[in-house]
Amino acid sequence: MDKTKALELVKQQLPEKRYIHTLGVVQSAKELAHRYGVDEDKAELAAIYHDYAKYRPLDEMEQIIKDDGLPADLLTANTELWHAPVGAVLVRREAGVEDEEILSAIRYHTSGRAQMTELEKVIYLADYIEPGRSFPGVDEVRELAARSLDEAVMKAIANTIAFLMSKQQTIYPDTFHAYNDFAMHKGGHRNE
Amino acid sequence: MDKTKALELVKQQLPEKRYIHTLGVVQSAKELAHRYGVDEDKAELAAIYHDYAKYRPLDEMEQIIKDDGLPADLLTANTELWHAPVGAVLVRREAGVEDEEILSAIRYHTSGRAQMTELEKVIYLADYIEPGRSFPGVDEVRELAARSLDEAVMKAIANTIAFLMSKQQTIYPDTFHAYNDFAMHKGGHRNE
Repeated sequence: MDKTKALELVKQQLPEKRYIHTLGVVQSAKELAHRYGVDEDKAELAAIYHDYAKYRPLDEMEQIIKDDGLPADLLTANTELWHAPVGAVLVRREAGVEDEEILSAIRYHTSGRAQMTELEKVIYLADYIEPGRSFPGVDEVRELAARSLDEAVMKAIANTIAFLMSKQQTIYPDTFHAYNDFAMHKGGHRNE
Repeated sequence: MDKTKALELVKQQLPEKRYIHTLGVVQSAKELAHRYGVDEDKAELAAIYHDYAKYRPLDEMEQIIKDDGLPADLLTANTELWHAPVGAVLVRREAGVEDEEILSAIRYHTSGRAQMTELEKVIYLADYIEPGRSFPGVDEVRELAARSLDEAVMKAIANTIAFLMSKQQTIYPDTFHAYNDFAMHKGGHRNE
């Protein structure tokens, strides 16, 4: 699938504001992929499609979670998480993307997970720091992104956990596991 | 076991500063137990013994974790967590405490866990807010403790997670599960 056709497909799925966000994620993802030696074409396609399912009705997403065997704990989690794994299903089904690396980058772009691939990190981070984003802490993550992919993703995940806690909302287990995985590899604890 | 003998036993285990902390936890635990209708005698004994194992050598604690079938993931977790579950083992073995409610309050006083008992909450919170404590956020938790045990414990756990993240340290799963359990019951997410 070429980029132009992918953008056309996505544009039909998203309101203008979200489409502009997507273009920002594409730009950031390409820059990050180039900087960290990740496949730039895969990063571009994953970025284009990352929010593909964002505006699907909740009841449609719920049905896909059930019908397509997605993790059942999604059903009791924050519905804001649904569009990522559901997006991976729909991008395969409706856009014909079969590349598992691209699909998993879409699947985990909101929650993260333990042992993220480099492409997953690039998309997670690009979604967090794209030029249209402005919220407390984003500039610090942008600075980290200039020198360490892992440090930047870890900080973005920690900020996300802190934000959820400030709203007394639950933290999805994959997000917690993502944080701990980075902390463990920082030497945060292993007692070796 | 009466209180006087328990204090004598504990005093032998702790340096002066930690013993004074323990007396503060006893005072706070009794106040909280009274306020929230928890057994005050159990709260007092659990508070007296909560740091019983705090100054045992790491290699002794590691051996107890292995020999007594404590969760193996403790071995790769922050060693600061060890004295709580090891303490529950040693308080039973060396001080003869058999009351499971008291022992579990000792066991989970550092990590918390999902579905904490009221006594576990009292000891967790007393350890956090006892009069000798002074760190950012403690006064807010003291204020919460005056009106809601759950709100106060949830905030103390969230603060602990934020503190660990600020140091890029791992978060023990029980602590994460404790937070999520409180958030879930706040209606943070269930999508019912």
